[in-house]
Amino acid sequence: MLYAGIDLGGTNIKAALVDENGHIMAETSAPTGLPRPPRELCAAIAAVLDELLKASGVPKENVAALGIGCPGSVQEKTGAVLYANNLAWENVPVAEWLRALTGLPVAVGNDANVAALGEALYGCARGAQSAVIVTLGTGVGGGIVIDGRLVTGFNGAASELGHMVVEPDGEPCTCGQRGCLEAYASATALLRETRRAMAAYPQSLLHAMAAQDGLSGAVPFAAAAAGDAAARAVVNAYIRRLGQGIGSVINILFPEVIGLSGGVANQGEALLAPLRREVEQRVYGHELGGPLPRIVACTLGYQAGLVGAAALAAQRFGG
Amino acid sequence: MLYAGIDLGGTNIKAALVDENGHIMAETSAPTGLPRPPRELCAAIAAVLDELLKASGVPKENVAALGIGCPGSVQEKTGAVLYANNLAWENVPVAEWLRALTGLPVAVGNDANVAALGEALYGCARGAQSAVIVTLGTGVGGGIVIDGRLVTGFNGAASELGHMVVEPDGEPCTCGQRGCLEAYASATALLRETRRAMAAYPQSLLHAMAAQDGLSGAVPFAAAAAGDAAARAVVNAYIRRLGQGIGSVINILFPEVIGLSGGVANQGEALLAPLRREVEQRVYGHELGGPLPRIVACTLGYQAGLVGAAALAAQRFGG
Repeated sequence: MLYAGIDLGGTNIKAALVDENGHIMAETSAPTGLPRPPRELCAAIAAVLDELLKASGVPKENVAALGIGCPGSVQEKTGAVLYANNLAWENVPVAEWLRALTGLPVAVGNDANVAALGEALYGCARGAQSAVIVTLGTGVGGGIVIDGRLVTGFNGAASELGHMVVEPDGEPCTCGQRGCLEAYASATALLRETRRAMAAYPQSLLHAMAAQDGLSGAVPFAAAAAGDAAARAVVNAYIRRLGQGIGSVINILFPEVIGLSGGVANQGEALLAPLRREVEQRVYGHELGGPLPRIVACTLGYQAGLVGAAALAAQRFGG
Repeated sequence: MLYAGIDLGGTNIKAALVDENGHIMAETSAPTGLPRPPRELCAAIAAVLDELLKASGVPKENVAALGIGCPGSVQEKTGAVLYANNLAWENVPVAEWLRALTGLPVAVGNDANVAALGEALYGCARGAQSAVIVTLGTGVGGGIVIDGRLVTGFNGAASELGHMVVEPDGEPCTCGQRGCLEAYASATALLRETRRAMAAYPQSLLHAMAAQDGLSGAVPFAAAAAGDAAARAVVNAYIRRLGQGIGSVINILFPEVIGLSGGVANQGEALLAPLRREVEQRVYGHELGGPLPRIVACTLGYQAGLVGAAALAAQRFGG
């Protein structure tokens, strides 16, 4: 049996047909086309799936169910999106509408959670008892997977790892609190601190590097590697805060794997090696020498959301 | 069928026979008698159970399995205590020894986790989908229960909620880090701040109240209720930190219930009402008006550890 996996983003609707082992058999993508009324967008999603079936020659009867990762706050039981800022959605009954449009049973999850499920089952944490996936992008999101299942809390809103407070009265966060992990460990925060360092150190290599390639999260890492002290301080502070947050997550959940995704995770070992050292000393009981969670980069890229959505559907409706 | 539940503490061995609905049919207690070699202590535990069976007239055949909550770091799979500071234990194969001594299958858990399981199943969170129990005692411990099962991580060491960092470079913690929740929200930390307030405010009511009843976590709450400004500041700061920590736990796990136990939780609504206000504004998406976790006091007292240990045995070995 196959499962359809959809990743609904603000820019693109991605869709795939996925087998029971998490292999993508066929995939496609279409523009989300915002602004667009919710019903019309759901019809577009169903059309993307139809085209994918047609193009791949897979009969619809071979698809057991559809899973979809949506941005925003999702009510799993009903399959409704309660609120999604970037789609301008409020109380959209996605599962109900897509079921009517496609004839398939529909499972809905938060997009970050669904991607975490994909990485946990088929990517960086394949075979692990548990994993926490942390996305270091515009914000800090993620997902918690224990024994192969997402932990979404009693209302579907769990895994907002970015809104753990790591510095009381610290930097303002988009959520209204101050000092959230997101306000220190997002790519956005890394850029903010890089700009501050550039303002404070006119001689820093950061200026030349940013002028050449544009300012991105890669710039402070590259300048630090080239020996620039201001950049090194930015990178060290970033890793210290991220390590503080991940250390706390480990003390609470002690997952087998911590998987990092998102733009900043592309730094690979330049990020991971010092992060592991920072985290280790923060793990409760580390001096006993027991096994520590593995801290690794995610491996599936955008496909995590597709295989994760299909896996969600398989878990909900599979045999 | 009945299950034996044991709560092994530094002072007492408590034991109970518990039915499948979490009702205690008989219970007893004996001194732990430290210092004492591990084998001798395990023999004493078996003897306590034998006496309980004898006194209650329950035939051993009616007991399906034994569960025990032990302090320290427990390896669930093998049932060994890797390290328990207050028992001076290192690598003690409790399950193996107690199985040989009693003839019963033995499940071992960390004492705080096991008590959390008891509260989640039969106490303050009975019927809830998920609960996080936070113990505000000498330290800050707890347990996470989702869908009726303890979350113990891949090595059994999870739920060290007290070692989430809430203030980088803050107060030193017994674990070696700085700024842990435990260093702000334990009864020990509350007393430390009360003493600091007494030193700074010689006119504070705290002095008279501490002189009358001895200094305890109840004193700053009582003085605050009597209008003492220094005590009010101590209590407010305590609640703000605890609220920060609980808010972060909610954003990560979004359990249906947060249950507070331990000495400070005895303050009841004087603690809970302002804590709920503090936490609410920290919950990600709270402005959407969805349901929030209930923050309540635990209800089972010391019996949580007994029914929780029995429940652990029932989950591991029950039919």
